[in-house]
Amino acid sequence: MCRWLAAYTGKPILLERALYAPAHSLIDQSLHSELGAEATNGDGFGVGWYDDQTTPGVFKSIEPAWNDQNLRELAAHVKSNLFLAHIRAAIGSAVQQTNCHPFRHGRWLFMHNGYVANLPEVKRDLALAVDESLYPEIAGQADTELLFYLALTLGLEDDPPNAVAQAIGLVEAAGERKGVKFPFQGTIATTDGERIWAFRYSSEGKSRSLFFTGHVPTLRKLYPEREIFQEVTDDARVIVSEPMGDLPGAWNEVPESSYGVVGQGDDRLATFKVKHPAKAVAFSAPV
Amino acid sequence: MCRWLAAYTGKPILLERALYAPAHSLIDQSLHSELGAEATNGDGFGVGWYDDQTTPGVFKSIEPAWNDQNLRELAAHVKSNLFLAHIRAAIGSAVQQTNCHPFRHGRWLFMHNGYVANLPEVKRDLALAVDESLYPEIAGQADTELLFYLALTLGLEDDPPNAVAQAIGLVEAAGERKGVKFPFQGTIATTDGERIWAFRYSSEGKSRSLFFTGHVPTLRKLYPEREIFQEVTDDARVIVSEPMGDLPGAWNEVPESSYGVVGQGDDRLATFKVKHPAKAVAFSAPV
Amino acid sequence: MCRWLAAYTGKPILLERALYAPAHSLIDQSLHSELGAEATNGDGFGVGWYDDQTTPGVFKSIEPAWNDQNLRELAAHVKSNLFLAHIRAAIGSAVQQTNCHPFRHGRWLFMHNGYVANLPEVKRDLALAVDESLYPEIAGQADTELLFYLALTLGLEDDPPNAVAQAIGLVEAAGERKGVKFPFQGTIATTDGERIWAFRYSSEGKSRSLFFTGHVPTLRKLYPEREIFQEVTDDARVIVSEPMGDLPGAWNEVPESSYGVVGQGDDRLATFKVKHPAKAVAFSAPV
Amino acid sequence: MCRWLAAYTGKPILLERALYAPAHSLIDQSLHSELGAEATNGDGFGVGWYDDQTTPGVFKSIEPAWNDQNLRELAAHVKSNLFLAHIRAAIGSAVQQTNCHPFRHGRWLFMHNGYVANLPEVKRDLALAVDESLYPEIAGQADTELLFYLALTLGLEDDPPNAVAQAIGLVEAAGERKGVKFPFQGTIATTDGERIWAFRYSSEGKSRSLFFTGHVPTLRKLYPEREIFQEVTDDARVIVSEPMGDLPGAWNEVPESSYGVVGQGDDRLATFKVKHPAKAVAFSAPV
Repeated sequence: MCRWLAAYTGKPILLERALYAPAHSLIDQSLHSELGAEATNGDGFGVGWYDDQTTPGVFKSIEPAWNDQNLRELAAHVKSNLFLAHIRAAIGSAVQQTNCHPFRHGRWLFMHNGYVANLPEVKRDLALAVDESLYPEIAGQADTELLFYLALTLGLEDDPPNAVAQAIGLVEAAGERKGVKFPFQGTIATTDGERIWAFRYSSEGKSRSLFFTGHVPTLRKLYPEREIFQEVTDDARVIVSEPMGDLPGAWNEVPESSYGVVGQGDDRLATFKVKHPAKAVAFSAPV
Repeated sequence: MCRWLAAYTGKPILLERALYAPAHSLIDQSLHSELGAEATNGDGFGVGWYDDQTTPGVFKSIEPAWNDQNLRELAAHVKSNLFLAHIRAAIGSAVQQTNCHPFRHGRWLFMHNGYVANLPEVKRDLALAVDESLYPEIAGQADTELLFYLALTLGLEDDPPNAVAQAIGLVEAAGERKGVKFPFQGTIATTDGERIWAFRYSSEGKSRSLFFTGHVPTLRKLYPEREIFQEVTDDARVIVSEPMGDLPGAWNEVPESSYGVVGQGDDRLATFKVKHPAKAVAFSAPV
Repeated sequence: MCRWLAAYTGKPILLERALYAPAHSLIDQSLHSELGAEATNGDGFGVGWYDDQTTPGVFKSIEPAWNDQNLRELAAHVKSNLFLAHIRAAIGSAVQQTNCHPFRHGRWLFMHNGYVANLPEVKRDLALAVDESLYPEIAGQADTELLFYLALTLGLEDDPPNAVAQAIGLVEAAGERKGVKFPFQGTIATTDGERIWAFRYSSEGKSRSLFFTGHVPTLRKLYPEREIFQEVTDDARVIVSEPMGDLPGAWNEVPESSYGVVGQGDDRLATFKVKHPAKAVAFSAPV
Repeated sequence: MCRWLAAYTGKPILLERALYAPAHSLIDQSLHSELGAEATNGDGFGVGWYDDQTTPGVFKSIEPAWNDQNLRELAAHVKSNLFLAHIRAAIGSAVQQTNCHPFRHGRWLFMHNGYVANLPEVKRDLALAVDESLYPEIAGQADTELLFYLALTLGLEDDPPNAVAQAIGLVEAAGERKGVKFPFQGTIATTDGERIWAFRYSSEGKSRSLFFTGHVPTLRKLYPEREIFQEVTDDARVIVSEPMGDLPGAWNEVPESSYGVVGQGDDRLATFKVKHPAKAVAFSAPV
């Protein structure tokens, strides 16, 4: 029920370069979305960033991002070589910081633009499938936080595509048990601070949009007047829900049912296929 | 920089009947304005209501109105025979409760949909023109609060149309001194709990919209299926920035440079003419 | 981890009469507790009140109660014949509205001054014991909300003392499984809008304090100068964590391991005994 | 009406080292003050820090500091060689971010632990004395913000002790005109990012407390087991309202009617004497 910008990787830059600087920026988009499911996204936001500390920093607020003075201050003073930003349009769950993305566990961040359909009907089954040691960390009521803890339970830290495939598989299995037609919708970004994995998938096969920037040296030639392309390094990447700025040729769409990896020299696009649990295994006790 | 709904007068009803009930309600409008200057109005809101207490109650919040749970609770439990509601789209001043409308002084409430142009340039002159005994009551930084205290200084409690005409006159005089072309824009509603005065005026002569409901018995005949018209009394009136619901014939536009009064059997529309201060008098010391 | 004032029953009065009026009022206590476990209780608050609507109103805020302007407004304008108020001192769970008491389900309100010990260790077992149809209503992460839904699962709406006895029994059983010495601490108030049940119990047998007002006609004679006793009816009752005001003889302590009922002519004190679940039954799957 | 910790200068350290790390830290003090005028300081807070950007960053919140998750995140990730922190206990003015210290103008920060007595009576006179070009920057209603703009009007950026002496002189003159016995109380810290000036003064001669750390090499010898003294450089200084930690010999009290300067090799203590405006000049028009 949201929108997100995931995520910059490259030379450390001030967060404001990505959040506020370009025309049609993420913050502008929070007021006037063109491609998003909701025109306005004013129900809180979050940013997560990596620096030389052990765990990433996370700043969340329930005020609309466009007028949040603290976000402006933070973005004008914090530099990072990898950061995520997310803006919510809540439907159903409370506007509170514990429901704002990105969610954090250790060095991992996770965020989502979409929803688990009919959440009230499947929530308990999904919560039961979360590992007992992780369960107490769940702080809010967002479908995405639950999805994150399912993915952690299923090995996110070792093999993100496999864990996300299984977590969505569980969501689809739980939905099907309740007769939900299309249990999952959305795009997901997750990172360990070194690489970012970004997924585009929906049960219906009509997923929310997802874009990534092209090759920086090419962009520099195409748009020599754009400072930002001179400033960032060749390997910089930005992944977004909707293109920012107005630069034909700058943005590539992630295809339906695909995922991409960027960072640490790892830069590829692959097919994403959900893995359903063996019927006998899912939701049986003890999980 | 805002939108408002001013205001219901009539038989006591739950606030929610006016704020949430109709399709295209005020709360809907806060997300998707059609006539307003800004598409989204998510920078706080306020309601003011009268009951059997000495002064009206005022509830203000800096969260977007559409997801504020406390507003929903209040609106579902508080009944009033006269209330105002206002939703902000801030430009320039902070999103804080002391900048939310309606403003209160004793039994009076005051709110505004518009702006004082070039406020930073004229603010000090206008603040100086506020009566010394009223000055310490100014709690925020909103142009509207300043306008309210100017109007109080100039006799709002005795003759609202005259005081508002002089207050806007001062704003225009202050603006002209600084070379501001069109110093004032907007619609204003003010009330003492018995009658509501609503003004539509701008220096440019292109004022923001303002509507009031027609004759209730006529509306009952036109829309026999609408519960709300059966529920309210014959003398009920609603004044709004934009028509709510989708009822042709229900809404009359307040003409440019006019004001209306409703409540206590007083129900009329008149021409509004700004009164400029004598040049020698305005902004001279001692104020 | 909190303090509460539960609750006025009697003739409808403005909430402010109970919240702000007396010296050493609830709001004062939130800043300077004398008997409470924490000296300062500044982590949000809530009030719940009954009127002629179907469900009670609930107002919650994460600002310290002592400076919350909206609470002052509400309390000065809302009258009720039965209301609860609660002030938090959070330890461990987030300061957010969904963690503020009182919690509501239909016509029922529930609040608690105390804690479930070692919550992270027992949370999952307790969540599993909540009825599947109630589970999706859990909106926050507070131990008290979980306890409320356990009590609802176990028949709170039919027999409050029995349901609370069983719910605390489950908490103690879950704690014992994890080697927790004293799994439960606290006082609880719950109401259906007609009667209030107030419990004082802790596994350790050293429960937080709980008081109720004496017989109003007696209080009137003892303190003829106190307006409040003239104003309220003979059957008025106030239940509190700590005595308010400085009136010897006004407050009776609820004994350890007891509960009281007030309202609707029902006015008694009884022994409270926790009911542990049959060992074979608790926490077995499927719940 | 507040407390503050001003301010660290020295080698860049994480803010959390000063805000959270020591026993009896600033954050602890916000809950349990021993020397402060108020026992609890829960009405918002602010931090201001310098880095390699043009202007300092400022983070403000109206939640109690002790449970603010965003402050914890910021403090765990932001390093600075000079920063200020302030915690409020509001009396009279609203709990809103624009009333939180430190206040900022260009590269300057300013904060205050104390009050202008009888503010409503003198506020207008003081506001009139603010330079017309600075006046529109005043965003809140705090006495301290007004004092800051008076000091800026009177040359803070060129000669801080002289400007503060004149600003307090104006406050005293304005108070005397209204018959206020002791118009000013408090300690003040102001900085340009290179040096910190800290003042202790009150009209009554009974000023709030102010302390600064001693010579780091001496502290290292006295407390060899304290990591913090090993970590910071020889020239590090901390100025506080109340001593943090429990280290006899670590803290020196700033004497009554004195000010100190630290930073950039400038390290001295001097007598502070208020400069009253010429009687004919103050508060005459035009200011």
